[in-house]
Amino acid sequence: MSYTSYSHTVDRKIMWGDLDSLGIVFYPRYYEWIDASGHLFFEAVGLTLGDLWRTRNIIFGLAETSCQYQRPGRYHQEIRIATSLDALGEKTVVLKHVITECATRAILVEGYEKRICLDVSDPDHFRAIPIPEDIRTVVQNAMRE
Amino acid sequence: MSYTSYSHTVDRKIMWGDLDSLGIVFYPRYYEWIDASGHLFFEAVGLTLGDLWRTRNIIFGLAETSCQYQRPGRYHQEIRIATSLDALGEKTVVLKHVITECATRAILVEGYEKRICLDVSDPDHFRAIPIPEDIRTVVQNAMRE
Amino acid sequence: MSYTSYSHTVDRKIMWGDLDSLGIVFYPRYYEWIDASGHLFFEAVGLTLGDLWRTRNIIFGLAETSCQYQRPGRYHQEIRIATSLDALGEKTVVLKHVITECATRAILVEGYEKRICLDVSDPDHFRAIPIPEDIRTVVQNAMRE
Amino acid sequence: MSYTSYSHTVDRKIMWGDLDSLGIVFYPRYYEWIDASGHLFFEAVGLTLGDLWRTRNIIFGLAETSCQYQRPGRYHQEIRIATSLDALGEKTVVLKHVITECATRAILVEGYEKRICLDVSDPDHFRAIPIPEDIRTVVQNAMRE
Repeated sequence: MSYTSYSHTVDRKIMWGDLDSLGIVFYPRYYEWIDASGHLFFEAVGLTLGDLWRTRNIIFGLAETSCQYQRPGRYHQEIRIATSLDALGEKTVVLKHVITECATRAILVEGYEKRICLDVSDPDHFRAIPIPEDIRTVVQNAMRE
Repeated sequence: MSYTSYSHTVDRKIMWGDLDSLGIVFYPRYYEWIDASGHLFFEAVGLTLGDLWRTRNIIFGLAETSCQYQRPGRYHQEIRIATSLDALGEKTVVLKHVITECATRAILVEGYEKRICLDVSDPDHFRAIPIPEDIRTVVQNAMRE
Repeated sequence: MSYTSYSHTVDRKIMWGDLDSLGIVFYPRYYEWIDASGHLFFEAVGLTLGDLWRTRNIIFGLAETSCQYQRPGRYHQEIRIATSLDALGEKTVVLKHVITECATRAILVEGYEKRICLDVSDPDHFRAIPIPEDIRTVVQNAMRE
Repeated sequence: MSYTSYSHTVDRKIMWGDLDSLGIVFYPRYYEWIDASGHLFFEAVGLTLGDLWRTRNIIFGLAETSCQYQRPGRYHQEIRIATSLDALGEKTVVLKHVITECATRAILVEGYEKRICLDVSDPDHFRAIPIPEDIRTVVQNAMRE
């Protein structure tokens, strides 16, 4: 199941500390940014991951992440991270993230996070579970907006 | 072309600062570790990426990275990152990284980095080029060891 | 010499990846933010550190940094980093950074960076030098604005 | 009160991702390393900070940190972080950290962390408390070894 989905955007500026010795973005930084953007996406549609964890012992843990790098990010570029739902499975959601340079709209990076619904009641043994219906409804409703 | 390849290992301990609020490794850290391990792999086979850059204006830039997360990494686990060559193309190399817990040998993360040979003579326009023959030979020889 | 100085501000939101296992900001993140804010401060007054380095082999390297932590930073707080010149010596500048929560104006962190003017013509031996007059003038003029 | 203290050491190698555009260590990395080394110091003397938190709602939070930078850290240097107790107050401990290059024993960085004993029973209001006697004894005994 795939969606023409609500897209949540975050803008930021590439900073000195984001660069490597070549003067381009050190790629783990992109993952920090898409992870943060994913959290904001969930909140924007009405799901605060921290609350889910504290009140229901449910998290959306990472099953898989991936990025493709089209152009190097450089110092002081203003960039936009656009996050949307790409797929919704029984136990999983896939978030798609596209990072563009604001000035030119050129794509720098395209990536995704596949997150899996986990019961973490036992902190030492996380267990994959079907996404509860009320949570699924929140996500689906948000998709129809 | 695929190899039963030389494998380079790095051991490390999961530290306080590697964890997120759930007390498990914040996943961009894994990418920091596999990137570092990839650099050490290249050096172990005789290619210092920093020298390649300074003396020949060649880098192996990132085209794509990906990780699958099998088990959460936790505080103070001793882990091993094993890096090997997974594929060698005309312009690209794929490094495979497997992160295991030392005590149990359980796999925590499996990932890869697809790196592309770039001419960076013009710092503003990186250009993909075929891997030069001498560099290809170094990599291939190392694979036969 | 001390100034009632121009103050440069950067706002940001505390993100998931900034937190440690206690759910509060992992303190090295504060240093990443003040370093970035310091770079933007220099640019705001007319000095781009990257250009200084490339065109004149001069950098303002770190001699000393320090932070005092008044209150823990927490998830999703909007914070403001205000950076100003605290002292200007023959070879050194001291930047003061104050991080406040936007909503309450409560101070979270106060810190400084003492930066020293370095000639990096020889990349293997950085050498402290008096701040060149034209650079000193730019900084002083900005302070009088 | 000052000690000729037990010193706990951690060795590590400076990695690609630790560097900034100048090819020297980005200084917030030093704080990540001394923080990690501080946690290991506490464990080495018999105090696991994570256990203190979970079983007694006590943490040693940061009150102040500082570093002085003597020499830039460079790619692939083997470095040693030596951590020792510098002072023990009613509510505070000061850890001293010295980072040296293994090959030359040259000091790269000297820093400290002043940590304050906090009762975190109420997660929204951390409260400074005198260090409990049993914890103080553990620290003092370790100092006499």
